[in-house]
Amino acid sequence: MNVIERCRFLAGMSEDPGNLTRTFLSPPTREVHRHLGDWMRSAGMTVSTDAAGNLRGFYAALNPGAPRLLIGSHIDTVPNAGAFDGPLGVTLGIALVEALAGRRLPFGIEVIAFSEEEGVRFGIPFIGSRALVNAVDRSLLATADKLGITVEQAIRNFGLDPDKLPEAVIQPKEILGYVEFHIEQGPVLESLALPVGIVTAIAGQSRLDVVFRGMANHAGTTPMHLRRDALSAAAHWITMVEREARTAPHLVATVGSIEAFPGAGNVIAGEVRMSLDVRHEDDDVRRGALSRMLAGAQQLGAERNIEVDWKQRLDQASIACGSALVATLEKAVAAAGLPVHRMVSGAGHDAMVLAGWVPAAMLFVRSPGAISHHPDESVLPDDVEAALHAGLQFLHLLEAHHA
Amino acid sequence: MNVIERCRFLAGMSEDPGNLTRTFLSPPTREVHRHLGDWMRSAGMTVSTDAAGNLRGFYAALNPGAPRLLIGSHIDTVPNAGAFDGPLGVTLGIALVEALAGRRLPFGIEVIAFSEEEGVRFGIPFIGSRALVNAVDRSLLATADKLGITVEQAIRNFGLDPDKLPEAVIQPKEILGYVEFHIEQGPVLESLALPVGIVTAIAGQSRLDVVFRGMANHAGTTPMHLRRDALSAAAHWITMVEREARTAPHLVATVGSIEAFPGAGNVIAGEVRMSLDVRHEDDDVRRGALSRMLAGAQQLGAERNIEVDWKQRLDQASIACGSALVATLEKAVAAAGLPVHRMVSGAGHDAMVLAGWVPAAMLFVRSPGAISHHPDESVLPDDVEAALHAGLQFLHLLEAHHA
Repeated sequence: MNVIERCRFLAGMSEDPGNLTRTFLSPPTREVHRHLGDWMRSAGMTVSTDAAGNLRGFYAALNPGAPRLLIGSHIDTVPNAGAFDGPLGVTLGIALVEALAGRRLPFGIEVIAFSEEEGVRFGIPFIGSRALVNAVDRSLLATADKLGITVEQAIRNFGLDPDKLPEAVIQPKEILGYVEFHIEQGPVLESLALPVGIVTAIAGQSRLDVVFRGMANHAGTTPMHLRRDALSAAAHWITMVEREARTAPHLVATVGSIEAFPGAGNVIAGEVRMSLDVRHEDDDVRRGALSRMLAGAQQLGAERNIEVDWKQRLDQASIACGSALVATLEKAVAAAGLPVHRMVSGAGHDAMVLAGWVPAAMLFVRSPGAISHHPDESVLPDDVEAALHAGLQFLHLLEAHHA
Repeated sequence: MNVIERCRFLAGMSEDPGNLTRTFLSPPTREVHRHLGDWMRSAGMTVSTDAAGNLRGFYAALNPGAPRLLIGSHIDTVPNAGAFDGPLGVTLGIALVEALAGRRLPFGIEVIAFSEEEGVRFGIPFIGSRALVNAVDRSLLATADKLGITVEQAIRNFGLDPDKLPEAVIQPKEILGYVEFHIEQGPVLESLALPVGIVTAIAGQSRLDVVFRGMANHAGTTPMHLRRDALSAAAHWITMVEREARTAPHLVATVGSIEAFPGAGNVIAGEVRMSLDVRHEDDDVRRGALSRMLAGAQQLGAERNIEVDWKQRLDQASIACGSALVATLEKAVAAAGLPVHRMVSGAGHDAMVLAGWVPAAMLFVRSPGAISHHPDESVLPDDVEAALHAGLQFLHLLEAHHA
């Protein structure tokens, strides 16, 4: 089976018959481990499962004391998922080791299938990669799913020992870096007709709840100039958010949720509640745009006698990928005969967690139709080939460097 | 008791202890009838209840064959209502007859307390005034409330005979006209510091459901230029609706309800559903504005690759008040020493139903704070005095005319 066939094969291992749903350490995870483990062993790797349920295949270096390169992604899914979000990065990692055909490098390779990234079962994402950076703490272990089963109990139920979590932690000095292959889950590469893109950073993110309060009134008896229409004001603000987001490359801002009260066709809205999501790789750009959006809201409020209020729910800094590792990945992409395109990830990934401890890099693979978190999620065979070639060039460049 | 005291006294007669709710022919209606009937009789009127539950007090003319003037409003309420929406027009009518102190005019006066205007119990408004214009048909009689009681049964339960509905119908040749005193339920008179306003027309009304369909996508991974954001497009449209509504005097347009799907903060809205309510006294102005709003939506949709769809739910023509009656009411307001201000009613009233059969006119009384359909609904004592004076001048002018 090639990489795509393996992803589709693993997609059959689900909690739900008929669609793919595979949450943290659910029964089908065991089946996925079995097959991944078989492929890993066939490629010459030794296989273990750490206490966070991460399946880890180690391909030894020429010399025992050599550092190792981590290649990984996650094998949990969202409900009704596609086959490639996560598993592509794991099966590509295995395929790279297979391509070495037993040849040993001056560094080891550890392919990791993270047990959890999507945050579906416990509402907290990255349980797998957190274990590698010693961030599975007491409170995370005590978090319960909808059935009341805690993370700790889920680990025990899978036959693992949470007391051994410290053994899952990586030591940065032993690690060359972490590289993750992942579908883009966005339209950029497709719009540029590119097979792959090199991720230089994971965008920082602001999330807010914004409220506009005016005065509910009769839609028939209240003339336009005597209105305090919260929805008209909110509409003006949404156009302002969009305009501001278009002022800087890569800046994105989204009002995705809106509610108007009382919400009747013949009553002027007295209150509107909205979400705001702003992302950019440069935290100053993001925060600057956000403060202009909020200043604009206040100005609108003053002009229209609308009370404007907000609550910041998230202010997550952007995370840079390891610059040397990114440069090597760029060279590898070029050496594979592919166009070099740098991009920013607007979504979080395991690489975000690891980037705080070790140099991290990501290679995005084009997402046809930008479809993800959906059964129609796909990849193009040529793009997977391209990613594989780039990955092999990456290993060659690292080999030359560490020879 | 003066007019305001009577309204507050009647407000104590409710289906709900603690707040005022009085729907079509509910038990407290009987109590209201008893007190109104007493006041009517004391003023020299003969009192009857027609088969639609309207309480009708007749004050005879000098001569038996003379036509009569109708003065009325409704005595049903919305849930948790104020004291004046409806009862003010009935108690003012009685007060006008009282002020005649038994003096007979060349025309009769019939004061009518309509049983139903708000449409609360059966979801269909104007049951009372419909009976006068022969518009209580089989299907209305068969309409049931939430308990399964039909209009017909409710009439019987109140001790009335639906077979006698034809007797409730008025003959236009016997009627001088219909005049209704009503609180404005809007902010216009207050904003102009005027006690009363003369209603020249009841605005026509368009109501639509409007849908914008784009593409739901990840708020982090979809660049601004690759979005088909239904909510951004909808926001632009709402600002356009507001701008268009401001181009013509008295035109009002309202988007009061909005829903975005999927409605998550980190997902670009793929679909937005909205209401649109447009009102104006000139149907051409209203329909012209509406068609420009819809053309604007289509243009926005074309520019942004958003599918725009709508469904018209109501296209109700405007209704002009009787011009001679309005002119007389204007003279009466001036003769009472009050500023003459013509205005359009943006809401429906019993006068709208009667205007199709007989000349109708309305006098709006200032609504402090524009508060209505709320326990805090009020009127100013001086404004009620002003309305009473204007009403008496109105009777004097009609008397001179018909002498």
